Amino acid sequence: MASEVLERFRPLFQPRSVAVVGATDNAFKLGFHALAAVTSAGFEGEIYPVNPRAGDEIQGQRAYHSISELPQGVELFVYAIPEKAVVPAVREAVERGGRAGVIFAGGFRETGPEGVTLQEELVRIADSVDMKLIGPNCIGLVNVDANLNATFASPLAEFPQGNISAVSQSGGMGNVMLNGIIEEGVGMSKFVSIGNRANVKFADMVEYLAEDPETGVICLFIEGLDEGAVFLEKARRASRKKPILVYNRGYTEKSAQTALSHTGSVASSEAVYHGAFQQAGLLQVCSSQEMAATAKALSMGASLPVNGVFMSTHTAGPAVVISDICERGGVRFPELEPDIARAIGEFIPTHALPRNPLDVFAFAWTDPSLYLRSTDLALSQEDIGCAVAVFVSGAGSGPAFPAREYAEIGRKYGKPVFICLIAPASFMDEMQDAQREGVIVLNTPEKMGETLVNLNRFASLRASQEGNGD
Amino acid sequence: MASEVLERFRPLFQPRSVAVVGATDNAFKLGFHALAAVTSAGFEGEIYPVNPRAGDEIQGQRAYHSISELPQGVELFVYAIPEKAVVPAVREAVERGGRAGVIFAGGFRETGPEGVTLQEELVRIADSVDMKLIGPNCIGLVNVDANLNATFASPLAEFPQGNISAVSQSGGMGNVMLNGIIEEGVGMSKFVSIGNRANVKFADMVEYLAEDPETGVICLFIEGLDEGAVFLEKARRASRKKPILVYNRGYTEKSAQTALSHTGSVASSEAVYHGAFQQAGLLQVCSSQEMAATAKALSMGASLPVNGVFMSTHTAGPAVVISDICERGGVRFPELEPDIARAIGEFIPTHALPRNPLDVFAFAWTDPSLYLRSTDLALSQEDIGCAVAVFVSGAGSGPAFPAREYAEIGRKYGKPVFICLIAPASFMDEMQDAQREGVIVLNTPEKMGETLVNLNRFASLRASQEGNGD
Repeated sequence: MASEVLERFRPLFQPRSVAVVGATDNAFKLGFHALAAVTSAGFEGEIYPVNPRAGDEIQGQRAYHSISELPQGVELFVYAIPEKAVVPAVREAVERGGRAGVIFAGGFRETGPEGVTLQEELVRIADSVDMKLIGPNCIGLVNVDANLNATFASPLAEFPQGNISAVSQSGGMGNVMLNGIIEEGVGMSKFVSIGNRANVKFADMVEYLAEDPETGVICLFIEGLDEGAVFLEKARRASRKKPILVYNRGYTEKSAQTALSHTGSVASSEAVYHGAFQQAGLLQVCSSQEMAATAKALSMGASLPVNGVFMSTHTAGPAVVISDICERGGVRFPELEPDIARAIGEFIPTHALPRNPLDVFAFAWTDPSLYLRSTDLALSQEDIGCAVAVFVSGAGSGPAFPAREYAEIGRKYGKPVFICLIAPASFMDEMQDAQREGVIVLNTPEKMGETLVNLNRFASLRASQEGNGD
Repeated sequence: MASEVLERFRPLFQPRSVAVVGATDNAFKLGFHALAAVTSAGFEGEIYPVNPRAGDEIQGQRAYHSISELPQGVELFVYAIPEKAVVPAVREAVERGGRAGVIFAGGFRETGPEGVTLQEELVRIADSVDMKLIGPNCIGLVNVDANLNATFASPLAEFPQGNISAVSQSGGMGNVMLNGIIEEGVGMSKFVSIGNRANVKFADMVEYLAEDPETGVICLFIEGLDEGAVFLEKARRASRKKPILVYNRGYTEKSAQTALSHTGSVASSEAVYHGAFQQAGLLQVCSSQEMAATAKALSMGASLPVNGVFMSTHTAGPAVVISDICERGGVRFPELEPDIARAIGEFIPTHALPRNPLDVFAFAWTDPSLYLRSTDLALSQEDIGCAVAVFVSGAGSGPAFPAREYAEIGRKYGKPVFICLIAPASFMDEMQDAQREGVIVLNTPEKMGETLVNLNRFASLRASQEGNGD
């Protein structure tokens, strides 16, 4: 079953060869950027640029002047051509044995009756040979694991490898999600902008990614759903295997209108979505930044019940923000047990109180061993499930947090450890170093608090799934 | 009056000389980082490192072994010494004619009755000669305009000059706010972490910054207030002169407890704060990132009533997010007038509909003149007060948005223009270039939406102030 699903979508994600129809040397055309994206990503299969008006070469590669000139069996066709040319070009690809397509052009279902008819024809042709189509009206897909960048955005190729995969109707929101992941200093596995969803829908992608061995966490940006029941059923099954995060927008008048013009969705009411997503075991988030931070924590293995949190800090303000957000979201900071409090009280500075959250003042900034000793004691307490250390990064010129030793304490207790490492987004070194040690790092107290709340919500979702006997 | 206020706090922000008491060569002590901060910022006045246990030099500068050794009239004393030593050292500074002090150490009001007594003594000594004290229990202050970094964090010195000033009780939250401003690609004027507020309080800073010619926008992070009535009265006056943003936390049990241990504040109830801030004309925000984005927009002159927004995009998803956030926050997207819609309809691609928000599909990504032409028409409409263009940045390898021409259109109508430039936070070039042209750039749709909502709320605040005859 798993391998059947993987094989069904293999030509999209792991094609042996890619044709770029509409490839050109003219940088004002999408076809220029589409070919540049495929080649610059280091794709190792054959690449076939196709353009009837080309000379011998396009971007230094041998040019093909029609699809019928291509060898039989090219697997993935990337279409960077106007909508009028798409249907004939897909028909030609089918004749050459094409297995998958990416269609950037708009002008289909989202534009009214004529566009609906055009898209239906497209689906008929593709479905006749089980060819899988991403789009139309999309920016395509990326599979970092296969060095495949079938979009028109070259920078996507520079993405580090990781286990987060993202699916978005909208290419633009796909980019927003990816930027969020970049800023979290982690990598990505697959990115798909599915646009008008000709014959590849959210339900398909959720089913595929649930089986994909490279994907650990699935992120979805949804403006509207068709075949909602099918999606929810497949999502319900998938969410038993991997965490699925959903970011959903388009409830207000103008936003629904914009979503409609976009990919032919009708945005449904907020409450209906919310309830249905929750029942399917999906974790709903409120922004792409929150999604990226939570996806990172889950992808790093923090998907266990969080119970209570122990927090230590050298500066109270950010801890105030984190606990304010956490307590509103149902995350607790258990009181320390008397013997643990007593032991902590023995080494913290005068005036510091041995409680949770623990404020050890600026002393801990120059002597971060205070974090290690207190965390080691606190994590031994049963109702404390994870630890957070708040630390203002010296950004290379001040003290550094002892991430390795901190990670070891987490491993000793089998409990996740976090640093709220206050640093500008442009300073990534310390974050990435700590994450390599296994510490989950968030660089603002707001993201730290939201992530803990989301992990707690995720644990509740999982518990209610188990309660349902799923 | 203005000059009296400025002169009263001049020794803090523009001292002619600075003594660093507790300066040392030992990098595990705050006094090391404090001296490094002052010197690395390029302060042009005299710098006096003081430490009784030093040799001839500290960090390559002539060492003084006691405050009494210093020449008469050193203006600012930075105290990087333990709390027990602070009172005598402030008394000595008063004897040498000191005018201002920064005290990092905790152990005062926040620790209970003994600490309260100690802090009262401190205030008595300082007040006797009108010496202004920042702290205790703080990370100090920065005045970019005077190359003054009186904190223990050297990186703060690298801040570009700008007109946003920030005051935070908490040093850590001050850092979070500063990182937010860095990520917005703009500069700062003054940063103050006022800690326990010995004799310099939020009320004083608001009064000072309202008069400070280098400050255009004031940002406050507040965990709790004492003398709330005095603050609100001064804030009410100051908010007539400059926008004041407030970020306020510490309402829940643990967060209030942490705030208390911090700087001796008792967090008050949420509703009371909210109403009082609104009455004083302060704009409340919900996160430090939202604060930085809104402060940037206001500092770049977008403080006029926003009326309605015209939005154009090449990708619907982010526009869906922006309009969803805007409409919930009361920001409107007026219908285009018939003649404007007709004129726009003439040049946009087939299938695109000439309405607001305007989705011109991927065409506009390769041909951004579509943004310019439609914005030029839409801004001529009376009930449209600003324009937003949504654009996925090619991050140096794709097309760039024509920011200069776009800015000119904004100036022609005297209406602010924004780009929601979707790019990772680490790619700053395009954002900063566009901002130099006068375009306000936000790099996520969430920040774009929140900023428009806040500008709209700010316009309402201003209107109600004027209605009150203020």
